[in-house]
Amino acid sequence: MSNWIPWACLGVSIVGVAFAAIYSRLVLKEDAGSERMREISKAIQEGALAFILREYRYVGMFIVVMAILLTVAMRKQDGWMMAICFVFGAVLSLSAGFVGLSISTRANARTTEGARSSGVNKALKIAFRSGAVMGLTVVGFGLFGLSICYLVFEVWLGMYNSANIILGFSLGASSVALFARVGGGIFTKAADVGADLVGKVEEGIPEDDPRNPAVIADNVGDNVGDVAGMGADLYESYVASIVAPISIASTGAVYAAKTNGSSLGARGMVLPLAIAGAGILCSVIGSLLVRTKEGGNPQRALTGATYLTAALATLSSFLLVWWILGWQHIGIFWSLFMGVISGISIGLVSEYFTSPTYKPVKEIAKSSLTGAATTIIRGLATGTLSTAFPVVMVAIAMGVAFVTGERVIPGGGGIYGIGLAALGMLSTTGMVVAVDAYGPVADNAGGISEMAHLDPEVREITDGLDSVGNTTAAIGKGFAIGSAALAAIALFAAYAQATGLSAISLVGDYKFIVGIFLGAAVPFLFSGLALNAVGRAAFSVVEEVRRQFKEVAGLREGVEGVRPDYSRCVDITTKTAIYEMILPGAIAVLAPLLVGRLLGAEALGGFLASALATGFILAITMANAGGAWDNAKKYIEGGEFGGKGTPVHAAAVVGDTVGDPMKDTAGPSMNILIKVMTVVALVFVPLFL
Amino acid sequence: MSNWIPWACLGVSIVGVAFAAIYSRLVLKEDAGSERMREISKAIQEGALAFILREYRYVGMFIVVMAILLTVAMRKQDGWMMAICFVFGAVLSLSAGFVGLSISTRANARTTEGARSSGVNKALKIAFRSGAVMGLTVVGFGLFGLSICYLVFEVWLGMYNSANIILGFSLGASSVALFARVGGGIFTKAADVGADLVGKVEEGIPEDDPRNPAVIADNVGDNVGDVAGMGADLYESYVASIVAPISIASTGAVYAAKTNGSSLGARGMVLPLAIAGAGILCSVIGSLLVRTKEGGNPQRALTGATYLTAALATLSSFLLVWWILGWQHIGIFWSLFMGVISGISIGLVSEYFTSPTYKPVKEIAKSSLTGAATTIIRGLATGTLSTAFPVVMVAIAMGVAFVTGERVIPGGGGIYGIGLAALGMLSTTGMVVAVDAYGPVADNAGGISEMAHLDPEVREITDGLDSVGNTTAAIGKGFAIGSAALAAIALFAAYAQATGLSAISLVGDYKFIVGIFLGAAVPFLFSGLALNAVGRAAFSVVEEVRRQFKEVAGLREGVEGVRPDYSRCVDITTKTAIYEMILPGAIAVLAPLLVGRLLGAEALGGFLASALATGFILAITMANAGGAWDNAKKYIEGGEFGGKGTPVHAAAVVGDTVGDPMKDTAGPSMNILIKVMTVVALVFVPLFL
Repeated sequence: MSNWIPWACLGVSIVGVAFAAIYSRLVLKEDAGSERMREISKAIQEGALAFILREYRYVGMFIVVMAILLTVAMRKQDGWMMAICFVFGAVLSLSAGFVGLSISTRANARTTEGARSSGVNKALKIAFRSGAVMGLTVVGFGLFGLSICYLVFEVWLGMYNSANIILGFSLGASSVALFARVGGGIFTKAADVGADLVGKVEEGIPEDDPRNPAVIADNVGDNVGDVAGMGADLYESYVASIVAPISIASTGAVYAAKTNGSSLGARGMVLPLAIAGAGILCSVIGSLLVRTKEGGNPQRALTGATYLTAALATLSSFLLVWWILGWQHIGIFWSLFMGVISGISIGLVSEYFTSPTYKPVKEIAKSSLTGAATTIIRGLATGTLSTAFPVVMVAIAMGVAFVTGERVIPGGGGIYGIGLAALGMLSTTGMVVAVDAYGPVADNAGGISEMAHLDPEVREITDGLDSVGNTTAAIGKGFAIGSAALAAIALFAAYAQATGLSAISLVGDYKFIVGIFLGAAVPFLFSGLALNAVGRAAFSVVEEVRRQFKEVAGLREGVEGVRPDYSRCVDITTKTAIYEMILPGAIAVLAPLLVGRLLGAEALGGFLASALATGFILAITMANAGGAWDNAKKYIEGGEFGGKGTPVHAAAVVGDTVGDPMKDTAGPSMNILIKVMTVVALVFVPLFL
Repeated sequence: MSNWIPWACLGVSIVGVAFAAIYSRLVLKEDAGSERMREISKAIQEGALAFILREYRYVGMFIVVMAILLTVAMRKQDGWMMAICFVFGAVLSLSAGFVGLSISTRANARTTEGARSSGVNKALKIAFRSGAVMGLTVVGFGLFGLSICYLVFEVWLGMYNSANIILGFSLGASSVALFARVGGGIFTKAADVGADLVGKVEEGIPEDDPRNPAVIADNVGDNVGDVAGMGADLYESYVASIVAPISIASTGAVYAAKTNGSSLGARGMVLPLAIAGAGILCSVIGSLLVRTKEGGNPQRALTGATYLTAALATLSSFLLVWWILGWQHIGIFWSLFMGVISGISIGLVSEYFTSPTYKPVKEIAKSSLTGAATTIIRGLATGTLSTAFPVVMVAIAMGVAFVTGERVIPGGGGIYGIGLAALGMLSTTGMVVAVDAYGPVADNAGGISEMAHLDPEVREITDGLDSVGNTTAAIGKGFAIGSAALAAIALFAAYAQATGLSAISLVGDYKFIVGIFLGAAVPFLFSGLALNAVGRAAFSVVEEVRRQFKEVAGLREGVEGVRPDYSRCVDITTKTAIYEMILPGAIAVLAPLLVGRLLGAEALGGFLASALATGFILAITMANAGGAWDNAKKYIEGGEFGGKGTPVHAAAVVGDTVGDPMKDTAGPSMNILIKVMTVVALVFVPLFL
C-alpha cells in the first residue's frame, strides 16, 4: 500500500484543483456589473498584478540563489535533487498565489453586482467560491507537488535520503511564503494607514472615497496581503506539516516499528500524505455546503461548514491511522486529535479577547475615556495576557501528542506524534483558506460599491458580508498561528532527530543556552523591522496623497472627470514594500545558517526552540491586541461612550491604527519566520554537524 | 585564608555601613528650609512611611508563610537553617529600604534649600550623599548578612550543605525585592499618570502644582519606586551574584581543582565574598570623589566617579583572583572582566536608543508629525530593535566567560566563570545605586521648590540636577537589566549543576521543550498584569482627584488656605498598588514550583532558560521604548517640530504616557521576575528530583 497511496493522493490533489477550476469558472461567468465597476475592478487587478510581478521578480532571484546554494553546499547529499524539489515547491506556491489573486480581483466587482442584482445569498456565493478557488488551489498544488516528489524520489528512484530531498519542497514553500507574507503585509498596511491618515484624518473624506488617490492601493492591499499572502502562509504550513512527519518516519523507531509481525517501514511516511488527501476531499465537501437562504445568517453558513469539515477530517484520520498503521498503533490518533482540539480552542480564545461581546474589548473601549495613552496600555496588556491560554494549550498538545506517540512506538513515536498533531490541525486547510480568502473579496466589493456610487443598500449587504469576514479572519488568524506553531514544532522534532540532540549538557557546555538567548531575540528584531517598514512605507504614501491633493486641481472638490493618479500610489507602495521586505527576509534565512555554522547544531537547537516559543507568543500578542483595538473602535462607533466624532472615538482610532501593522504585518510574519528558520535548519543539518 | 577572609568581609561591610551613617548625618544636619518646605517634605515622608509600612505588613506575612514552607518542605535538607537565612536576608533588605527611604524623603527639602541658599554644588552634594546612603546600605547590609551566614554555616558549623543553606538568604532578598519593585512601581506610575491626566490634561495646571491632590502621592512615588524599589532590586542582584558562584564552587570541579599541589577547596567560595568586599571599598572611594565646582558639570562628576569605581573594582578583582586562586587560575579573571564590559556596553547602547542626541529619538519625534499612532508604532519598533545588541552582548559574555572558565578548570569552571561575570558587573553596585538614588531626590527637590513657591532660579538648579538624574537613571536601568540577566544566568548555572542537567534529550523526551514554551510566556503574562495594574490604580487616582476638584470649594481657584486632601490620594494609591502586586508576585513564586513539581527538573530547566531570555528582552524593549518616548517628548518641548502646545507635542505626550508604566513598572519588574524564579527553583531543587 505504500506505493499506491501516493498515486491516490496525486489523484485526489487533481480532484481538488479541478474543483478550484470549476469554482473559478462559476465565478467568472457572473456579471461584473456596470462600466464603472469593471473599470475599478480592472484597476485593482492591474495594481495587484503589478505588485505580484515585481515581487515575483525578487523572489525569483532569491530562488535561483538558494537553488545554487543547495546544489553546491549540499553536493554530498544530492543537493541538486533537493534544489529541484525546492524550485518545484516555490513555483507551485507562486502559481497558487497567482491563481488566487487573479480570481479574487475579478470576483470583487461580481460580488458587488451579485449583491446589487440578487442580494446577500448570491453575493455570499460568489465571494465564497472565489475564496474556495484559493483554498483548493493551495491544498491541491501542495499535495500534488509532494505526491510527485514522493513518487519520484522514494518510490521510483528509491533514494536512501528521499525524505531529506523532499524537504527541499518545503523550503521552497517557506521561502515564497516569507516574502509573500512580509511584502504583502507591508503593502496592505502601508496603503491602508496612508490612505486613512490623509483621507479620513486630514481631508475628512469617507473610507473608499474615489477622490482619495490611495484608495485603489488600499483595495489592492487586501488582495495581495489577505489573499495571496495568507494563501502562501497556509500553503507553507500545510506542506511543512506533511513533510515533518514524513521526515521523522523515514528513519529510526517509527520506520522499524512492527505491525502484525512485519515492520512498518514506509507506511509511516505515506500516512501523512493520506491524511492530507482525505482533508482535501473533506474540504471539497465542506465548500459545497456553504449556502444560506435569503435572510439567512452567512456567519452560520461559514462556521457550520468549517466545523463539519473538521469533524469529517478527524473521522477519516482515525480510519486512516487504523487502516495504514494497524489497530495496535491506533493510539497515535490521539496525538493527531490533540492538534485539532488545540487549534480550535486557540481560535475560540482569540475570539474571546477580540470580540466586542466580551469583557476585554469593552474594557479597552472604556479606557479610551481617559485618552489614547490608556487605550494603548490597556490593549498591549490585553494582548500579552491573551497569550497565557494558547501557550498552555500548545504545551499540553505537545505533551499529550508526545506521550501517546511514545507509548505506541517507544523511542521515536513521540516526535512522530507531534508531527501528526500539526497535521491534524492542518488537514482542513482547504476549507480554512476558502473562508479566510472570502473576507477581502467582500471587503473589496464594498469598496467598489462606494467608488461606483451604487445604492447604499448594496453597501449594506457587502458590509454585512465583510463583518462576517472579519470574524472568520480573526478565527483564521488564530488557526494560522496555532498551526504554524505546531508545524514548526514538528519540524523542530525532525531537526532534533536528524541532529541526534539526545545528550545536551548545560553544565559541560553552554552553547545551548547561548542559542536560547539569541533565538528569543530574532522575533523581536523581525517585528521591529516589520513595524518600521510599515511606518516608512505609509509615510511615502502619505506624501504622495498630499501631493496629489495639492497639485491636482478640482480633486478635493470632486469635479466631474477629475481623477487622481491611482497607479502612482500603487507603484510607490509596491516599491517600498518590496524594498522593505528584503532585510527581514534575509535575517530569517541567514540567522539559522550563521548560528548553525558558528555555534553548531546544539546551539541551533536552543535557538530554534526559543525563537519558536517567542515568535508564537509575539504573534498572539500582536494579533489579539490588534483585533481588540479594531473592535473596541467599532464598539464605540456602534454608539457606546459617545460614538463617532467624540474624543473617545479619536482615542480608539489611535489604538486601531497602532494595531493595524501589528495584527496584519508583524504578527502574521511570525508564523512564517518560525517555520522558515526551522526548515532552513533542517535542510542544512549536514553543514552543522 | 578561607577562614579569615569572611571575617575581613564582615569588617568591610561594617565600614560601608559606617560611611552610610556618616553620610546620613551630614545630610540631616543640613537646613531643611522654610516652614512650608518642611511641611511638604513631612507630608512626603509620612506618605512614604504609610506606604512602606503597609507594604511591609504584606511582605511580612509572605515571609512567615515562606519560612514555614522552607522548614517543612525541606525538612530533610535542614530547611529550618535555610529559613533562618531566608528571614535574615529579607529583614536586611526591608531595613535597607527603610533606611534609604528615610534619608531620601528628608534630603529632598534640604536639597531644595541647598540650591536656594548656596547653588548647584551644595544641592548636588546633599542629593548625592542621600543616594550614597542607600547605595552603601544596600551593599553593606548585603555583604554583612552573607558574611555572617558563611561564618556560621560554613566556618563554624561546617555544614556539608552550607552553600544551599546560604541560598535561603538570596531567596529572602529576592522575595522582598519582588514586592518592593512591583508594588513600588505600580504606586509611582499610578500616582504619576493619575496626577498628570487630571492635572495637566483636564485642569491645565502645571506639574507639581500644590492644588493637585495627587501631587504628594506623585512625590512619594519617586521615593518608594525609584529609591526603595530600585535599592531592593539591586540588593537582590548583588546578593544573587555573590551566592551563585559560592554555590557553584561548593562542590564539583571547582572545589576539587588543584592549585600549587593542594586542592582549591573553599577558596573558590570565598573569592566572591572578597571581590564584593573590595567593591564596597571602591564604592566608598568613588563616593568621596563626587564633587563639582560652582558652574561645573554635575553629569561629569557623577559618571567620572562611576567609571573610576569600576576601574578600581576591576583592578582589585584581578589581584584577588591571583592571590586567592593562584596565578594558574588567573584566566578566570577574564570571565569576570567580560561581565564588566557587557554591563557598560549595554548601558551605552541604552543611551544611544534613548538620548535625544541620536537618530532613534529624533525619528520618534518626527513620527509625531503624523499623530499619536505613528509615535507609538515607531517607539515600539525602536524598543524591539534595541534588543539585538544587548542580547548578542550577553550571549558573547556568556560564551567567553564559560570558555575561559572551562579552560582554567575543566568540567565546572565554565559555569563558575559565568557566575563571576555577573559578580564583575555587580561589584560596583554601591556606587551605581548611589548615583541612581540621587535622581529621585533631585526630582523631589524640584517639586518642593514648586509647591513652596520658591524663586524660579531654584527650580532651574534642581531641574538641571534632575535632568542629570534622568540620564544616570537610564544608564542605571541598563545596568540593572544587564546585571539581572547575568545574575540570573549565574543562578541558572548553579541550578543546572545542582540538578545535573547534563543529558537532556529532545528526541526521547519532550518536557524540556514544553518548559521552554511555558517559560517564554511568563514574562509576557507578568508584564500584562503589571500594565493593567497601573491602568487600574491610575484610574482610581483620577477618580479621587476629580472628586476633590469638584467637591472642595476654592481648590481649583487656589483660594488662600484651601488645601486638597493629599493623604487620601496617597492612601488610595497605596491600597491599590499593594492589592495589585499580589497576583504577579504569587505567579513569580508559584510558577517554578508548579512546573518543577508537575513536569520535573528538566522541564523547569527549559522553563527558566527561556523565561530568562524573554524577560531580559522584554525588559530592554520596555525600558528603551519608554525612555525614547520620554526624550522624544522633551526634544519637542525643546522647540523642535513646533514645540509645546502643538498637536505634535500632544502626540508625543501620548507616547510618553504609554512608556511610563512600561519603563518604570513592567520593565524593571522583569529583572526581579527572572531572578526570583531561578532562585526559587534553585532552593527547592530537592523537591523536583
